[in-house]
Amino acid sequence: MAFSPALSRLIDAFRILPGVGAKSAQRMAFHLLQNEREGGVYLAESIQTAVASIRHCRECRMFAEAELCEICRNEQRDASRVCVVESPADVMAIEQNTNFQGRYFVLMGHLSPIDGIGPEQLGLDVLRERLASGPVEELILAVGATVEGEATAQYIAELARQNDASVTRIAHGVPVGGELEYVDAGTLSQAFSGRRPL
Amino acid sequence: MAFSPALSRLIDAFRILPGVGAKSAQRMAFHLLQNEREGGVYLAESIQTAVASIRHCRECRMFAEAELCEICRNEQRDASRVCVVESPADVMAIEQNTNFQGRYFVLMGHLSPIDGIGPEQLGLDVLRERLASGPVEELILAVGATVEGEATAQYIAELARQNDASVTRIAHGVPVGGELEYVDAGTLSQAFSGRRPL
Ligand SMILES: [Zn+2]
Ligand SMILES: [Zn+2]
Repeated sequence: MAFSPALSRLIDAFRILPGVGAKSAQRMAFHLLQNEREGGVYLAESIQTAVASIRHCRECRMFAEAELCEICRNEQRDASRVCVVESPADVMAIEQNTNFQGRYFVLMGHLSPIDGIGPEQLGLDVLRERLASGPVEELILAVGATVEGEATAQYIAELARQNDASVTRIAHGVPVGGELEYVDAGTLSQAFSGRRPL
Repeated sequence: MAFSPALSRLIDAFRILPGVGAKSAQRMAFHLLQNEREGGVYLAESIQTAVASIRHCRECRMFAEAELCEICRNEQRDASRVCVVESPADVMAIEQNTNFQGRYFVLMGHLSPIDGIGPEQLGLDVLRERLASGPVEELILAVGATVEGEATAQYIAELARQNDASVTRIAHGVPVGGELEYVDAGTLSQAFSGRRPL
């Protein structure tokens, strides 16, 4: 006896989600069918809308539904300061917990040659161009304090120096090996104001 | 700054899934958009197909795509023995780990007056009819050894007695307070063969 085809397929499909194994996938499928059919339809439509409409901002690579994200469209934001982060979640964490008024560049990862993630995959050609052509005076590195984050930071610092932008790095409080999005508000705020030249 | 509408909606929609909080939902949305767009489309379609095609078997309430599930359609299965379980996952666990050749009745929950789950919500009117009209000789209770499972077992045992069916309950090995679907194969098999009259 196996589950019916549509149910097997549903359980299988849930496994594309991060952190979802066989047992969780089954639990999700059952819960959806037993208690959340309307919610399931809403989820399906939300996924389809998101996949069809969400792209990356041309300037900063943040998720956006237009060519430019909300921050890059905002003329009030200081274009001379650019904060480099690894993920969209980091942008949200900084926006919610600091009073940073500059712009961002979202790497969508970090250098990891073993996974085939080099400068190009992180959009560093876009960043280089922004440094070469734009009014960037300070590049603030807010990448994770991991080995890969470190290598990424060094690479980007070099890029900034070649383009006469100063480079700083957020400092206090981000735990070594920790992920930025899990840092509490106070710590992240302090780390931000305590940034030092690199 | 907030996420764009489609992204906010996607994160929100993931929260309908059991065990998915704000952070996990965000992580799922980002992962899907960054690495699994095709997988996301597959998931969305799988949900839609499942919601549209999966109903409950008329006889046993198992998830099914036809009026009767695979087991209820199978004439080889002994209709005189019916095993009552709380969830479709329990059916799968028993099918995979025992050599039970009878049929099932899936409660899709257990009695829980506080949540408004009474006999009707568990389809016990359907079970009563099956006991009254059918060839059921033994009703095997494989519901969880929890307080609610206990109450449910007692209620169904009474129903069976009224209809002159004998009632047994699986015994050894299912840990008190444990959930059936997490029991290992050997334990579940032993519990099954060690069932006793109630
Ligand atoms: Zn942008
Ligand atoms: Zn059935």
